Amino acid sequence: MPDAADAILTAQKRRRTGGRAGNRRRGGAAIEQMPWRLPVNIDRPTEPLTEEGVERLHHATMRILEEIGIEFLHPEAVEILRAAGCTVQGENVRIGRDMVMEMVAKAPAKFTLMPRNPDRKLTIGDGHILFGNVSSPPNYYDLEIGKKVSGTRQQCANLLKLTQYFNCIHFAGGYPVEPVDVHASVRHLDVVFDKLTLTDKVMHAYSLGKERVEDVMEMVRISQGISHEEFEAVPRMYTNINSTSPLKHDYPMMDGWMRMARRGQGLVVTPFTLAGAMAPVTMAGAVAQSLAEGLAAVVLAQIINPGVPCVIGTFTSNVDMKTGAPAFGTPEYMRATQMTGQMARFYGLPMRSSGVCAANVPDGQAMWETEHSLWAAVQSGTNMVYHAAGWLEGGLVASPEKFIMDCEVLQQIQRYLEPEVCDVSDDALAVETIREVGPNGHFFGVDHTQERYETAFYQPFLSDWKNFEAWEAAGAVWTAERAHTLFKRIMDEFEAPPLDVAIREELEDFVARRKAEGGAPTDF
Amino acid sequence: MPDAADAILTAQKRRRTGGRAGNRRRGGAAIEQMPWRLPVNIDRPTEPLTEEGVERLHHATMRILEEIGIEFLHPEAVEILRAAGCTVQGENVRIGRDMVMEMVAKAPAKFTLMPRNPDRKLTIGDGHILFGNVSSPPNYYDLEIGKKVSGTRQQCANLLKLTQYFNCIHFAGGYPVEPVDVHASVRHLDVVFDKLTLTDKVMHAYSLGKERVEDVMEMVRISQGISHEEFEAVPRMYTNINSTSPLKHDYPMMDGWMRMARRGQGLVVTPFTLAGAMAPVTMAGAVAQSLAEGLAAVVLAQIINPGVPCVIGTFTSNVDMKTGAPAFGTPEYMRATQMTGQMARFYGLPMRSSGVCAANVPDGQAMWETEHSLWAAVQSGTNMVYHAAGWLEGGLVASPEKFIMDCEVLQQIQRYLEPEVCDVSDDALAVETIREVGPNGHFFGVDHTQERYETAFYQPFLSDWKNFEAWEAAGAVWTAERAHTLFKRIMDEFEAPPLDVAIREELEDFVARRKAEGGAPTDF
Repeated sequence: MPDAADAILTAQKRRRTGGRAGNRRRGGAAIEQMPWRLPVNIDRPTEPLTEEGVERLHHATMRILEEIGIEFLHPEAVEILRAAGCTVQGENVRIGRDMVMEMVAKAPAKFTLMPRNPDRKLTIGDGHILFGNVSSPPNYYDLEIGKKVSGTRQQCANLLKLTQYFNCIHFAGGYPVEPVDVHASVRHLDVVFDKLTLTDKVMHAYSLGKERVEDVMEMVRISQGISHEEFEAVPRMYTNINSTSPLKHDYPMMDGWMRMARRGQGLVVTPFTLAGAMAPVTMAGAVAQSLAEGLAAVVLAQIINPGVPCVIGTFTSNVDMKTGAPAFGTPEYMRATQMTGQMARFYGLPMRSSGVCAANVPDGQAMWETEHSLWAAVQSGTNMVYHAAGWLEGGLVASPEKFIMDCEVLQQIQRYLEPEVCDVSDDALAVETIREVGPNGHFFGVDHTQERYETAFYQPFLSDWKNFEAWEAAGAVWTAERAHTLFKRIMDEFEAPPLDVAIREELEDFVARRKAEGGAPTDF
Repeated sequence: MPDAADAILTAQKRRRTGGRAGNRRRGGAAIEQMPWRLPVNIDRPTEPLTEEGVERLHHATMRILEEIGIEFLHPEAVEILRAAGCTVQGENVRIGRDMVMEMVAKAPAKFTLMPRNPDRKLTIGDGHILFGNVSSPPNYYDLEIGKKVSGTRQQCANLLKLTQYFNCIHFAGGYPVEPVDVHASVRHLDVVFDKLTLTDKVMHAYSLGKERVEDVMEMVRISQGISHEEFEAVPRMYTNINSTSPLKHDYPMMDGWMRMARRGQGLVVTPFTLAGAMAPVTMAGAVAQSLAEGLAAVVLAQIINPGVPCVIGTFTSNVDMKTGAPAFGTPEYMRATQMTGQMARFYGLPMRSSGVCAANVPDGQAMWETEHSLWAAVQSGTNMVYHAAGWLEGGLVASPEKFIMDCEVLQQIQRYLEPEVCDVSDDALAVETIREVGPNGHFFGVDHTQERYETAFYQPFLSDWKNFEAWEAAGAVWTAERAHTLFKRIMDEFEAPPLDVAIREELEDFVARRKAEGGAPTDF
């Protein structure tokens, strides 16, 4: 195709010399990225279960709740459930399906989360698929350090900067890496301060004891410069709890869950049902158990505060048959996520899943496993994708290179979901242009192309589309190393989002006061 | 979860010491892989077009064929089309939609391809998704050589061994790398000899001139020890042609297409419509043009031999906005593939797409781009996935490491498509097992798990699911290097499939005779 090649070169020259094609949108200096927006998942979900299959999975879930029950290791939670009519024996709570369905029906199918920057407001549900950063790895790895190390506050802050920097990251999850260099009693104060000053996106609180939850809610309230009443008027943050599978909710998680429920904040419950270990080896059984554990928490929340927003999460995966180690982004994981998606729609609840892998470094395996989990999120109709950027080693390691590689994929998913890619207007079908070009022409120079060229296709910031020779001449840099270079450049150019000085001082004062008081107990 | 961890360790010990879990299926020494089978795509396709959108795309395709026409640079083809009622002006052939639909309807929705080993018989269509090796890169890269080099016969043979070795590779495509060290006049003889002796899977012939096509058909016939009549009784091989987009079919491709059509072999037509270069910049326009070019060849084949099996291929992608270079595995590529899938179903034809990437080395980018194309193949209902293993640099480089990494992904897709993953029988829902284990137990040791443990989950051969410390202790080997090690081990243990000595000698004699005759002309 020498003609086409010539035309391409001509157009490139034209662009370089400031022709029509020179009017490109410009982002930051490090990369040119997609603008912030809330992508809508336009695909019909992939549904491995028939209608009868959904009924069977529902029935099994209800039998677990009715006949076997869930243990709530929190006396107040047990009392609330007993008073509402559940069958209680010690810590075991059995809930009839009528009550489950009645309570679940009170939870909204969609809701908003309002962070300190109203432009970053999220709608959870309503067809959206939103992405959050990796949360809670105790360890950190980057190519410069070259090994797995315990997380620090600085590394955590750097990953928070990435969370803020990338427009395809919609919400801040838990700590993107645990800053082990900060004492656990005051860690939440320092990290939440960093989070609220380095990002303006929707915030998360760990449900790890009364003090932590109350401190984070108060700091979020301060950051938004609002009253307690305003804080409670709409959800402004969320928590995510995990059950202690099988069939248990522990005290600190339940405590945070109930505190957040009372104040009308967002509630996400995500059982970690590893098939063959904490759940049945069969995926449908693991999903049924996950749903039962999740719905039990939703029932409690709806009794406490009817209508409080609840999200059903899935973290059902399988173990490695050779070692018993957890595996992620597997075929079984994908199907469990899709089955959970069908059930979330059946119960009318927004859904959470994750971007996950078992790989230890940001290489080919890391990307195929993460791709499997991210496409499962798309296929399942997931609304909140946790850990969507930066996760390695089954969640035990956070990596800035992986974060950036994942964001490249997230942007491509966002582009994939733009309806205009499949536009079949007469303009897009372009029969007249095909006639104009004919069998001996090329399309590069025609008006139809030139008018659309700058926005017709997704433009990556990390993928290298040079040919081998040009790539070699540019240093033969593999993807992970390119991501590392971008990481450094993003850190250099990062600017924190604006925050009123008085609010910042109020946050500083709060942190200082709570540190003086000793922070939170660490006996959990 | 210390309880679960203990149980895992106990079970591991039991397995090592030859307990129940010791009865694992064993494959070759290098890896334990999935058995050969023809996976069925059980997912409902992802359909970005509405019913009206399908009609609009169809109408645009028909307008291209009726109003603009396709150039056939082959006088005999033009005469055949003229005689059948098409409107001919020089090389331009316009075909009315009634004739298109009448002829396309003669092509079967499914057909079989019979290679020399009847156990490797394929059914194309009928819901199958089948995978073939990378085809036609002129260059080769592996981690040992560390740079891009021209292909050799030895490298080609090694990649053919991988094609045979992996059960997830169902058919042999074109040369997995062009052996540039063999003169072009006799290259097809040597490579097809290697192919027929190193593999027993379905064979392909390039449509590159009369001699090549006839030689390959004859060698396939010899390899199966059958008469000419038997050769023509069922399709035993296939060709794949590309149009010369826009809107042209060149002489050698048409020549091979017609020769294969007359003898009732499999026909795949795959226009390479790169949006913005050889096709409109809008994806629907590029797909419409691709369909028009493809359907024109199908019409010709059906006039020549009504009922001959035809497959509609797609290779619609987009260029890099920065350089004009082709890009692969992009969001636009995915949607074009899905749209083509909808149209292939509309026309009742089996479909071909590809496993592709723009990346130059087998790294993270290579895998996310390849994943995008492979999931597009699943989502589109593709029946034949060309280039499914081994492709780099937009098809200019073949890589054994990439081949092996891709096979890991292909196996996972095969597992993903097994209906039993989503079994919702009472056994799979496992309510009684959840009751038995209760809130304080674990599932590892129970009968329900032990009875299913060995086959419950996909077992990878390349993914490393060890934790970071164990992975580090094992040498901290990244995926591509692990694949390289496997490549060496597979080469060491490879055994060619059995072939009757007399047939092998007949093939050798044929090659010697045709070489003595000068092989094929090289003036194309």
